[in-house]
Amino acid sequence: MLIEVDMQHVSRFLGKQELAAMAPQVQSAHEQLHTGAGLGSEFTGWLDLPIRYDREEFARIQAAAARIQADSDILIVIGIGGSYLGARAAVEFLHSDAYNALPKSTPDIYFAGNTLSPSALAELVLLCKGKRVSLNMISKSGTTTEPAVAFRVLKEMLEEQCGKEEARRRIICTTDRCKGTLKQLADREGYETFVVPDDVGGRYSVLTAVGLLPIAVSGADISALMEGAVWARETYRHADVQANACYQYAAVRNLLYRKGKEIELLVSYEPRFAMMSEWWKQLYGESEGKDQKGIFPASAVFSTDLHSMGQYIQDGRRHLFETIVLVEKPAREITLAEEQEDIDGLNFLAGKTLSYVNHRAFEGTALAHEDGGVPSLVIRVEDFSERSLGALIYFFEKACAVSGYLLGVNPFDQPGVESYKKNMFALLGKPGYETQRQALQARLQKNCVPAKPADG
Amino acid sequence: MLIEVDMQHVSRFLGKQELAAMAPQVQSAHEQLHTGAGLGSEFTGWLDLPIRYDREEFARIQAAAARIQADSDILIVIGIGGSYLGARAAVEFLHSDAYNALPKSTPDIYFAGNTLSPSALAELVLLCKGKRVSLNMISKSGTTTEPAVAFRVLKEMLEEQCGKEEARRRIICTTDRCKGTLKQLADREGYETFVVPDDVGGRYSVLTAVGLLPIAVSGADISALMEGAVWARETYRHADVQANACYQYAAVRNLLYRKGKEIELLVSYEPRFAMMSEWWKQLYGESEGKDQKGIFPASAVFSTDLHSMGQYIQDGRRHLFETIVLVEKPAREITLAEEQEDIDGLNFLAGKTLSYVNHRAFEGTALAHEDGGVPSLVIRVEDFSERSLGALIYFFEKACAVSGYLLGVNPFDQPGVESYKKNMFALLGKPGYETQRQALQARLQKNCVPAKPADG
Repeated sequence: MLIEVDMQHVSRFLGKQELAAMAPQVQSAHEQLHTGAGLGSEFTGWLDLPIRYDREEFARIQAAAARIQADSDILIVIGIGGSYLGARAAVEFLHSDAYNALPKSTPDIYFAGNTLSPSALAELVLLCKGKRVSLNMISKSGTTTEPAVAFRVLKEMLEEQCGKEEARRRIICTTDRCKGTLKQLADREGYETFVVPDDVGGRYSVLTAVGLLPIAVSGADISALMEGAVWARETYRHADVQANACYQYAAVRNLLYRKGKEIELLVSYEPRFAMMSEWWKQLYGESEGKDQKGIFPASAVFSTDLHSMGQYIQDGRRHLFETIVLVEKPAREITLAEEQEDIDGLNFLAGKTLSYVNHRAFEGTALAHEDGGVPSLVIRVEDFSERSLGALIYFFEKACAVSGYLLGVNPFDQPGVESYKKNMFALLGKPGYETQRQALQARLQKNCVPAKPADG
Repeated sequence: MLIEVDMQHVSRFLGKQELAAMAPQVQSAHEQLHTGAGLGSEFTGWLDLPIRYDREEFARIQAAAARIQADSDILIVIGIGGSYLGARAAVEFLHSDAYNALPKSTPDIYFAGNTLSPSALAELVLLCKGKRVSLNMISKSGTTTEPAVAFRVLKEMLEEQCGKEEARRRIICTTDRCKGTLKQLADREGYETFVVPDDVGGRYSVLTAVGLLPIAVSGADISALMEGAVWARETYRHADVQANACYQYAAVRNLLYRKGKEIELLVSYEPRFAMMSEWWKQLYGESEGKDQKGIFPASAVFSTDLHSMGQYIQDGRRHLFETIVLVEKPAREITLAEEQEDIDGLNFLAGKTLSYVNHRAFEGTALAHEDGGVPSLVIRVEDFSERSLGALIYFFEKACAVSGYLLGVNPFDQPGVESYKKNMFALLGKPGYETQRQALQARLQKNCVPAKPADG
């Protein structure tokens, strides 16, 4: 089994028939998803993606990755939200959160265009000095401010480094199949392009070219990644919650939410999982956080954060539950040695592996938190392989869709993301936003005067 | 002003007299803190630390830092919780979250002993191959499992690399003044030692040797850091909430909590602030998360996370507020150029700096979130200098203490952190925990059988 869901630390918090009572709702959610009758069904292309992706494009992705591996020291992936989180999460899960720092034969991979920080962009330019760089610009439209700004700056850097002609060969665009600013530019300049499908939203796009190209550049086996997703698609096909661990996760988190557990903490015991948690936060937060409802997604790495958030989790306000992703087989192992003199008192661990110790920390913590009133769902994952990752991605995606229908929202839209953009465009003086601009500036000025308190 | 608190995006959510009504409670909290009558007063040594720290030790820290800069490629800081978060946060705030990757004349700084992950430790050993390494082991007792395990492994690595004699010169211990395992070992082996004071808890220790040595190794000016703290100590000395911005932050977050805003999201617009948020999470989560109450601390970097958590914040469950740390002057700047052809439609930004764009993103977002029902407190910080950082650290520390008293807890203990440790020791078979071990193992086995659902 690549994935198992373990309820032993949550069952105390559920009535005996509570999960069974959810079966009809889950059945209905399943049907909404699979028949296309549910809200947002135009964005469910990810559901069958593992078995019906474009093989020709897949081969081109592998060829492009091999070329970048051969001719580049650094790949910069330019994208924001779903256009970088999945790729970055996968690279760290499969290799290390210290991937760039470790000795290796594949290029360093940096992520840009996900911030407006001038320091972050300027530092990246510094890092590229004297290096052979390739760019992967990822944007459905090409006009999203953050990646568009970074692309302007980094394209200029690249052209200065190696000339316009060579730069053209080193820029790859992942964008709309036929329309939009970026597609237009790519066609004119002769950049190689890959497709962001129309029926797969950004947060569900990691198994499309959006995620696959950077993941392949890191040296990971993207065919095995897709195989893992195929396994999950097959394994989690049943409508019956009792026979579908993926739906059990969706149902139990909704049950806990309905009894006041409004924060879900995604916990792992490996630092290389931290970016997977960030990917998960977008997936769940953006799918469910609407209409004034939804579980607030947060994350932690244990035992690290037991020494920062541990006190709160153990004894603070009882409005949270944990979902623990426990990877059974570590990526690397260390065995503890006996010391002649047992000055730190650790000789009782001699001969034990560090992952043995880590797993006892997990067990001890789950029991302690259970006693403190915090339920923990445990998702056991076989190892840090591509197959396991593909399965886990699909598991979380499908659970998220069903969970959103159980909550009663459209799991595939994100209307709230536009609000800040509109205000920002107006305040930046973008043509067409003149009226809003005046209104917003007036609010900022009016706000400022009476409310600002004496300081110091 | 190094720091200003700006209430313009929160005032709509507060009654006209609400802050004034808090004045007596704030006055009382202030007195509890300053007279030593409050709970946990034995741990308030941080309060006067900026003016009465040990000058002789401070000079030794600077000398040790200079030595490490001269003879090491890598400094590994071994510590967990307060023994690494402050130092790591400061190094990233003052230099960059990409500090290690950037070209520089100071050593790389890695943090170990804050996890039980075998992969993370094994990768660090790989990174050190062929490098000149120094170790800073930070532990009050020397027996905390995570750093003690890492110290065993890394000390052995160091001794193999350069021999026992040279290793002795390359190990520095920050520990108790006179007692404990680590102090004992350091004295016997002749390691240089620095002091973790008795009256300063881990999460308040960044301005002691715990934080100062690694920060100094990064090339930062630790005298200026202390000067900033002196400024804040002086600026935030008033008992009257109307005259004390630090207490306004404490009061307003308690007011919002009392009306159902149970999650505080610490937001910044610079990736290099992300670790400061982690430091802040420990400070507030561990100080306030007890007796089944307390605000849940979370964090985000905007505009990055507006493309993951933005939907939830704009439209999700209305149980959260934001505290935005806005640094006015960026560490580096980029000016956007005009392009001949305005294909991405960004030419309206030509001649503008990226920090100008970033600030409009802040304004637009704060207004949008206000409209969505999310109050934002804004803490304006002058720049990324040592002085500003010292002031900000002290600001957050003092606000935290007063906030804890307003909530009605002891802001200086952390009884809940022991729960997982006891269970872990028992499950690991540590001598003395035999009875608990049997009970816990029985629970794990019993839990497993009936609750585990059919899978797949």
